[in-house]
Amino acid sequence: MNPVEIIIKKRNGNKLEEAEIRNFVELYLQNKIPEYQMSALLMAIFFSDMQPQEVETLTKIYIESGKQLQFPPKWHTVDKHSTGGVGDKISLMLTPIAAACGCKIPMISGRGLGHTGGTLDKLESIPGFRTDFSDNEFKQLIEKNGFAIISQSQQLVPADKRIYALRDVTGTVESLPLITASIMSKKIAEGAANLVIDLKIGSGAFIKDMKNAKKLAKLLKTTGENLGQKVKVIFTNMNAPLGNYVGNSLEVLETIEFLKGKMPADVEQITKALAIQMLNLTGIEQNRNKAEKMITEVITNHKALNFFKNFIETQGGDPAVCDDTSLLPQAKYELNIKSPATGYIKNIDSQAIGYALVDLNAGRKTLESKIDHSTGAYLPYKIGDKLQKDEKLGTVFANNKKTGKAVAAKLAKCYQLSAEPIAKQPIILGES
Amino acid sequence: MNPVEIIIKKRNGNKLEEAEIRNFVELYLQNKIPEYQMSALLMAIFFSDMQPQEVETLTKIYIESGKQLQFPPKWHTVDKHSTGGVGDKISLMLTPIAAACGCKIPMISGRGLGHTGGTLDKLESIPGFRTDFSDNEFKQLIEKNGFAIISQSQQLVPADKRIYALRDVTGTVESLPLITASIMSKKIAEGAANLVIDLKIGSGAFIKDMKNAKKLAKLLKTTGENLGQKVKVIFTNMNAPLGNYVGNSLEVLETIEFLKGKMPADVEQITKALAIQMLNLTGIEQNRNKAEKMITEVITNHKALNFFKNFIETQGGDPAVCDDTSLLPQAKYELNIKSPATGYIKNIDSQAIGYALVDLNAGRKTLESKIDHSTGAYLPYKIGDKLQKDEKLGTVFANNKKTGKAVAAKLAKCYQLSAEPIAKQPIILGES
Repeated sequence: MNPVEIIIKKRNGNKLEEAEIRNFVELYLQNKIPEYQMSALLMAIFFSDMQPQEVETLTKIYIESGKQLQFPPKWHTVDKHSTGGVGDKISLMLTPIAAACGCKIPMISGRGLGHTGGTLDKLESIPGFRTDFSDNEFKQLIEKNGFAIISQSQQLVPADKRIYALRDVTGTVESLPLITASIMSKKIAEGAANLVIDLKIGSGAFIKDMKNAKKLAKLLKTTGENLGQKVKVIFTNMNAPLGNYVGNSLEVLETIEFLKGKMPADVEQITKALAIQMLNLTGIEQNRNKAEKMITEVITNHKALNFFKNFIETQGGDPAVCDDTSLLPQAKYELNIKSPATGYIKNIDSQAIGYALVDLNAGRKTLESKIDHSTGAYLPYKIGDKLQKDEKLGTVFANNKKTGKAVAAKLAKCYQLSAEPIAKQPIILGES
Repeated sequence: MNPVEIIIKKRNGNKLEEAEIRNFVELYLQNKIPEYQMSALLMAIFFSDMQPQEVETLTKIYIESGKQLQFPPKWHTVDKHSTGGVGDKISLMLTPIAAACGCKIPMISGRGLGHTGGTLDKLESIPGFRTDFSDNEFKQLIEKNGFAIISQSQQLVPADKRIYALRDVTGTVESLPLITASIMSKKIAEGAANLVIDLKIGSGAFIKDMKNAKKLAKLLKTTGENLGQKVKVIFTNMNAPLGNYVGNSLEVLETIEFLKGKMPADVEQITKALAIQMLNLTGIEQNRNKAEKMITEVITNHKALNFFKNFIETQGGDPAVCDDTSLLPQAKYELNIKSPATGYIKNIDSQAIGYALVDLNAGRKTLESKIDHSTGAYLPYKIGDKLQKDEKLGTVFANNKKTGKAVAAKLAKCYQLSAEPIAKQPIILGES
């Protein structure tokens, strides 16, 4: 097997055989194929694409590079994945709700990089909260609380871990086949029998249009189903930050309020749509209306909130934050953001909002950056909302007044207003 | 400057600024950008292409990475480059002919790899012949003999040397902008004021059609002219091996016979077309007919042959080979190749011929392979020629009978015959 021939074969648009992909990846992991040949192959895949069978092979090799978790077959295991968006705290409210309805959710999550925050960063704003647990502890946590959210160990899909790090520095992240193998290998190795995916589309997401979204959804579903995991994809709108808050402890605050019934419309719609699919896939409740009723009930009767409290406590955090959110990290300053004009919001640059908040250390510039859990912004307006010039558009939460003011000015510029009325946008765009 | 952003910018099809290309290449040469980022950028360039200005910048940076040779301005300096073909010995006869007409040719050449042999390998089949000379010696050789053919020193375009080695192992050789920068940087750094390029098109060349040939020619000319070198491109047919012989000492033999007047039609046409352009570019003779007359004369009166003899002697070789070609390395066995059928030659897989002869060590599998200068083949038939089944199609020259027979069988399979008459093909396809 000559690595150059395999690179050229893919570069010329041909399908690679299973043995070719396997040899290339395995020799790479054994340091017998150098990084520069792997990065050339990754860029060739970016341009030449991969057929579903190639993606399945790559996913399988990723999974086999590490160990696989297993749960009792009678458990209703299901996990959720989001392709990432600004203010995306859905995992935080969705997991206790679905668990309160009977699902078992083994969620292995990540930290944020770039313009989107990570679920682990958000949870770690809760004093004492831990995410490093052994496989056995993970299983016990799920058995006890219905769900657990922990960080990825070195033993789970090491091939993806290493290749993702290379993709990150070689401009080869945004490739649908590579994204699919990366997502699905982790989610399958994690041991859940079912998976719901929140596939975000819009200015704040890396998928900008429905055509690419459908292509990715098909790849995700085919790969999952051929490797033994049932997959449901929900397409959601990412043209505005999700909910009212962006920032780590602020999103935990929003989660607690949500579980007490104060639900921003977009977060409610997405959370419920995903929860319905989780109940459906696991067979807990096939009927959509009945499933929605179950979900509304566990919110109304605070069963989900109690699941969240227990979860926090068992993972080492202080559950009192649910009763007194002032126990969460608080920023020193609150600075007003003023509307730059009078008119209807036509466009929101969610990605720029995410990057602006990195100036407050609400997100990471590099993997080594330290997060400030207390900072962020309150941004309640969506596309179609009307504002007066200089009206309060939102709030910045900062620990440095000068930086906070600069960020407030940057955030104001992320909103484009129109004199003409602008239609509100739907949140749920479809499913697959 | 973030290297990933530059990779992504090119990957997304955008034009890179001069400073971006310069920084990337210079930091790479200083080992501050790793090989895997350079290989990702090279693959992105393969797919996203480069605009002429980017190619010019890259060429300039390559040249500036090493030293540049200079010759007296009154010298009629001109060099020749071929994009490479099977049996391409044109440099061997062209240089003494053009030098005999008054050109000064500072040719820095290479060794072969893959299916095509290198000019240096062919010359080194002459007992004692040397190609390692200092810059000063190079200049003296040219002054004395009108031309010299030597190997590339470490000081000439080290950037191209290093990046070419990386391209070779990452499937990024066949990129027109990268090919242009590689060719033109060497040819400009070499110090010739003019350049003729034999751009080969066909099954035995890496350029398969006129469209790509014209695109490459335009890039080569624009780059040369903007960096101070006049360039003329001749498009030639590479659907059959050139001349009658393929193999190192066999091609030297063919060169000597050529300079004595025994000229295969294809070699004669290409050599003369290139020589005419060399006389034209240098201003020695602008008129095509007069130039051709000069060329024919130096062949007929053996002036070119004497230039070739002096060249061999001054570079350490035995000039007696010109009078007694049996002094060249001789293979032990001559094995007949039989025509596989009766009919007209419709297609010749020149590339497969090149690779088959590598089995006899007439070419190199890897840079470390040792060449057998004596082996090769006599293959006089071209597209359109008629053959009878089992008629002699050619001869294999081998030092191992068994391998020789196997190669003869392989070579026979490279000829595709048709029952219907097939038109002969033109050799010169155009110029630019």
